[in-house]
Amino acid sequence: MIGFGVIGYGYWGPNLVRNLAEIPSVDLRWVCDLQTERLGRLRQRYPAVNITEEFELVLNDPKVDAVAIATPVSSHFALAMQALKAGKSVFVEKPITSTSEQAERLIEEADKRGLTIAVDHTFIHTGAVKKLRELIRKDLGEVYYYDSVRVNLGMFQRDVSVMWDLAVHDLSIMDYVLDAHPRAVSATGMSHIAGSPENIAYLNLHFDCKLMAHVHVNWLAPVKVRRTLVGGSNKMIVYDDLETSEKIKVYDRGVTIDPMSPKAGERLNQMRIGYRAGDMFAPQLDVTEALGAELAEFVACVQHGTKPIADGEAGLRVVRILEAATQSMAKGGALVELAPERVFA
Amino acid sequence: MIGFGVIGYGYWGPNLVRNLAEIPSVDLRWVCDLQTERLGRLRQRYPAVNITEEFELVLNDPKVDAVAIATPVSSHFALAMQALKAGKSVFVEKPITSTSEQAERLIEEADKRGLTIAVDHTFIHTGAVKKLRELIRKDLGEVYYYDSVRVNLGMFQRDVSVMWDLAVHDLSIMDYVLDAHPRAVSATGMSHIAGSPENIAYLNLHFDCKLMAHVHVNWLAPVKVRRTLVGGSNKMIVYDDLETSEKIKVYDRGVTIDPMSPKAGERLNQMRIGYRAGDMFAPQLDVTEALGAELAEFVACVQHGTKPIADGEAGLRVVRILEAATQSMAKGGALVELAPERVFA
Amino acid sequence: MIGFGVIGYGYWGPNLVRNLAEIPSVDLRWVCDLQTERLGRLRQRYPAVNITEEFELVLNDPKVDAVAIATPVSSHFALAMQALKAGKSVFVEKPITSTSEQAERLIEEADKRGLTIAVDHTFIHTGAVKKLRELIRKDLGEVYYYDSVRVNLGMFQRDVSVMWDLAVHDLSIMDYVLDAHPRAVSATGMSHIAGSPENIAYLNLHFDCKLMAHVHVNWLAPVKVRRTLVGGSNKMIVYDDLETSEKIKVYDRGVTIDPMSPKAGERLNQMRIGYRAGDMFAPQLDVTEALGAELAEFVACVQHGTKPIADGEAGLRVVRILEAATQSMAKGGALVELAPERVFA
Amino acid sequence: MIGFGVIGYGYWGPNLVRNLAEIPSVDLRWVCDLQTERLGRLRQRYPAVNITEEFELVLNDPKVDAVAIATPVSSHFALAMQALKAGKSVFVEKPITSTSEQAERLIEEADKRGLTIAVDHTFIHTGAVKKLRELIRKDLGEVYYYDSVRVNLGMFQRDVSVMWDLAVHDLSIMDYVLDAHPRAVSATGMSHIAGSPENIAYLNLHFDCKLMAHVHVNWLAPVKVRRTLVGGSNKMIVYDDLETSEKIKVYDRGVTIDPMSPKAGERLNQMRIGYRAGDMFAPQLDVTEALGAELAEFVACVQHGTKPIADGEAGLRVVRILEAATQSMAKGGALVELAPERVFA
Repeated sequence: MIGFGVIGYGYWGPNLVRNLAEIPSVDLRWVCDLQTERLGRLRQRYPAVNITEEFELVLNDPKVDAVAIATPVSSHFALAMQALKAGKSVFVEKPITSTSEQAERLIEEADKRGLTIAVDHTFIHTGAVKKLRELIRKDLGEVYYYDSVRVNLGMFQRDVSVMWDLAVHDLSIMDYVLDAHPRAVSATGMSHIAGSPENIAYLNLHFDCKLMAHVHVNWLAPVKVRRTLVGGSNKMIVYDDLETSEKIKVYDRGVTIDPMSPKAGERLNQMRIGYRAGDMFAPQLDVTEALGAELAEFVACVQHGTKPIADGEAGLRVVRILEAATQSMAKGGALVELAPERVFA
Repeated sequence: MIGFGVIGYGYWGPNLVRNLAEIPSVDLRWVCDLQTERLGRLRQRYPAVNITEEFELVLNDPKVDAVAIATPVSSHFALAMQALKAGKSVFVEKPITSTSEQAERLIEEADKRGLTIAVDHTFIHTGAVKKLRELIRKDLGEVYYYDSVRVNLGMFQRDVSVMWDLAVHDLSIMDYVLDAHPRAVSATGMSHIAGSPENIAYLNLHFDCKLMAHVHVNWLAPVKVRRTLVGGSNKMIVYDDLETSEKIKVYDRGVTIDPMSPKAGERLNQMRIGYRAGDMFAPQLDVTEALGAELAEFVACVQHGTKPIADGEAGLRVVRILEAATQSMAKGGALVELAPERVFA
Repeated sequence: MIGFGVIGYGYWGPNLVRNLAEIPSVDLRWVCDLQTERLGRLRQRYPAVNITEEFELVLNDPKVDAVAIATPVSSHFALAMQALKAGKSVFVEKPITSTSEQAERLIEEADKRGLTIAVDHTFIHTGAVKKLRELIRKDLGEVYYYDSVRVNLGMFQRDVSVMWDLAVHDLSIMDYVLDAHPRAVSATGMSHIAGSPENIAYLNLHFDCKLMAHVHVNWLAPVKVRRTLVGGSNKMIVYDDLETSEKIKVYDRGVTIDPMSPKAGERLNQMRIGYRAGDMFAPQLDVTEALGAELAEFVACVQHGTKPIADGEAGLRVVRILEAATQSMAKGGALVELAPERVFA
Repeated sequence: MIGFGVIGYGYWGPNLVRNLAEIPSVDLRWVCDLQTERLGRLRQRYPAVNITEEFELVLNDPKVDAVAIATPVSSHFALAMQALKAGKSVFVEKPITSTSEQAERLIEEADKRGLTIAVDHTFIHTGAVKKLRELIRKDLGEVYYYDSVRVNLGMFQRDVSVMWDLAVHDLSIMDYVLDAHPRAVSATGMSHIAGSPENIAYLNLHFDCKLMAHVHVNWLAPVKVRRTLVGGSNKMIVYDDLETSEKIKVYDRGVTIDPMSPKAGERLNQMRIGYRAGDMFAPQLDVTEALGAELAEFVACVQHGTKPIADGEAGLRVVRILEAATQSMAKGGALVELAPERVFA
């Protein structure tokens, strides 16, 4: 049995609790939140769980092996570090930390102590994104672009911009499905509410190949959109997360270049481009709840000392991009190079 | 009667011919194209129209008052200038010219001779875009963003990038519906077909106000999308040109800021943001064919010496943005300021 | 406090329990199910609730004022009658009973004892259906037709046809939103799985007015559809329950009759029909969970002796139509008249 | 060359003319219409075509081999019979005649004279319907149901009900794609405009097998719908004619029956039904214009004396169903048996 504490019972905490409660090898021992009025219903539903406002009580419980941290981003580092130092493995909400330096220190601390650190990149555990990865790597050919639109009305965050709230999903998905990591980032954005961080942003990711990635995130959109286009030399994909049953559509479409010599009267540079339009197919997807699968994977990693798919370094890679994008946005969209990836022992 | 010649009978020319043939005050006298094999069917359908490969024949006809130019972009300037010099008014396909300097010279020439010059910004004559302008100016409040996605598979152009082919529509629509002109532009794009201009591009338009505009154009998309989101402080709009009957949807949605003092325990900077979600409505739109209305307007301008809505200066403003965006794209997305607008007499 | 027992903890029971547990004036005392393996998780979540396989224990508890019955249809009558005889008010899953005669007996028993009987016509407590009723009664003019399609893959029932499972929703909605009750019914259907009841059915409801109603239900459809068209002389409605935020769309469309004398050459009977196409609007809807509102209404009725909206007679009216439709289906679609409604004291 | 006359230049005639003008082996000699004001534009576009109000002139032209009849339904029989008697082959708009007796007489007359008779069942020449036929016959397994919804606002016909105007499409498609012909029909409908034929109708087609077919047609719907569901034992199809590029979707879905003996505690009749949900695919469709292909086929049949796919007997089969459905509608939906099909020599 893996003893567990959940820190933070706001928006996401209840989902963690519900899923952890259903994993047979988990002993959910504590839920900790500073706003105790949130915990009333919890007490009724999970009478066996200890409820507290004091993080230390959780850390001092020798039966706790791991904590899941679902507090505001700005507190992730301090809480996770404290937990690691107390010998607990940590599962941290996305984004893993507010800065890449913090993420690096957590990774080092976990490594040093042989503890597991995971970041909650939930989407990469969905059937849709797992299929997306498989298709991109097997069927798409050379990947030309990755374009994501993730917009809706709300939920404005007070401390982080829409990039840290919404684009983090796209960055974590790209980190998982693409075979390449970006070399540089540029981003523009704007705040329309005085005193509030940017509520609309556009990110460009630059790679050392023909791939181009772009993300549009917006908290002030009239409609909810969750749509990604991925184009490759062989096939193209539309991933629409709001579709009920056909989230992934694969199109056998593209262009063909006629390499023949030009016809009389054509200039040499007038190659002929043809369009290929074939069948579309929508693969059946695994519909297991992602968060449950993800927590089960984390628990197994804690038990066996293995690495989760979304380990601290995945969290770090995403935070480094967000950091660079934030710098770019502050400089009006200037290109910001990403430092070479740090290699951890 | 306004005597008319149509120059270029490729993709768009037949539409010009069909619409001109139905304007009672138009005497369609000539159609001119270098590829005469295109003209066979025309001869059968419009036996009264003279067909030629020689532009001069059209210009030498004293009964020709105006020419419509629907040739590749690179030839617009030379043909239009020749026509103006021969005393003919000109209606030029979008974009009006390849460079802003060319557009300026056409405007000057037309002004000097008292001739009409118009650019074919077809979309601004649709019921949808006319309604969009009305809504943006009357109901939206402060305009926060304008975001357009215009993607499909094909048609690759050989001489111009996807920006000059597709984004020109968005720029001409923005020029018409928004109350502000951009101050600077940045753009990124890529070519995935060796030897071909950029087939995917993202443009950011920067304004001297809270407005942010963004355009995504792509010739390599698996699906066709024509969707614009416009957000304002009072209302928000979705304009989807592929919808059959509800192209414009107006959402009574937005955020409200609670100016009250913070509750005990809240930090001062924790203002409260609420979300307002009211009715949506889709206004009935005028469904007259845009090109017919546009050509009728041009003919009336030629007859009465008035200015068309999309005059040479509208064409120039759009080309200046495309020029700047092309520069930015070449510099990896660097911000390119737009020179102050030139004022014509 | 109203003491409550929930009978049946299969598909719907957990929803009843979850909602009842959140009504402050409810004391949820018992959950009863014959398949006790279903009750394990319940025990953990709601430790204060008594769990039993014996219905009598619930009825013998003097603190129980009401029971909610969520068992297979065939058992509704016996369980509800037993409960009423034990002095308990009853909230019964739809359809209320297997036969109209059973429903009449329950109504009489409840009346005699001054107890409340309600049927769980959940949809009529949704914001969408409440708005539909308001629009039909205020804006539509004369109602011309009501057409519903409710199809999906599964869930086959063993004991009742797709009509009793799916059309019951449409019948309960029509009973609530329309101002008229049907006079006769015809229905056709078919079973494609040997030994299983009809999995596809079409119902026609005939009224004493210009109104025509039709329902298509199907357990073997490749896609899920929940779409109702309602046409009136002034407006028309599309109610699509699968839409996230615009479930109800009101179209200002219709025909206009030109009453003028015929033009020369027209025959007298050639009246001229014009088409009116105006704005569409989608009203903002109340998004409170229907089941919670419905149970709260039932509890208030038990407390104050008032009648719920979906009382026993509403349940009876729906069962009478289902009964007639079943007869019609057995006779190959013959018209079956509905007996005049019985008036209860 | 096949000499051609087009009779009727109202709604559909211009499409016939446009397509015939582009078939190289056709000599389009005449267009005939009683309302000559319709013909003005025609004269300008097709100066070589003779225009007349007198049908006899067309019939007396020995160079005319065939006529296409696009007049109101009530005149089809008289005009087609006259043409056949004058030795001309005929291509008749749908529905072929007003009565099955008329259709039989036309077929006999054409047979006797060795002339070709075809009915314009345009849809069966579309890529979508050709694919539908192929899928139904190859992949679907046993066909369980065919359900079509074909509704929109307008165009009311004065002389025929919505069934003869819209359902004729569905009946001609079913005649082509299904492997079975109906045994009996029932239909209900209503007129909401005094003095006008039924504007809404529901048809049930009954077959001698497990197949059930249903058609909903409506001239008073707020939205346009063209959607057909076809369910089979192996696969299911959604054919949505309003989709731009994915008109046909094939779903690998269905039910599976577990033939195992019941588990302890289950009653014997409780077989277990499982649901199979696999991939969806949308085949690429031929996008050739149907009417052009259809007319080319007719011309080839006239030239070589072969039978068109939609011959007089296909037209007759559809009219017999419409006749029976009209009878059923007049009798309040009573089942009307179709007489055994007549065998023509």
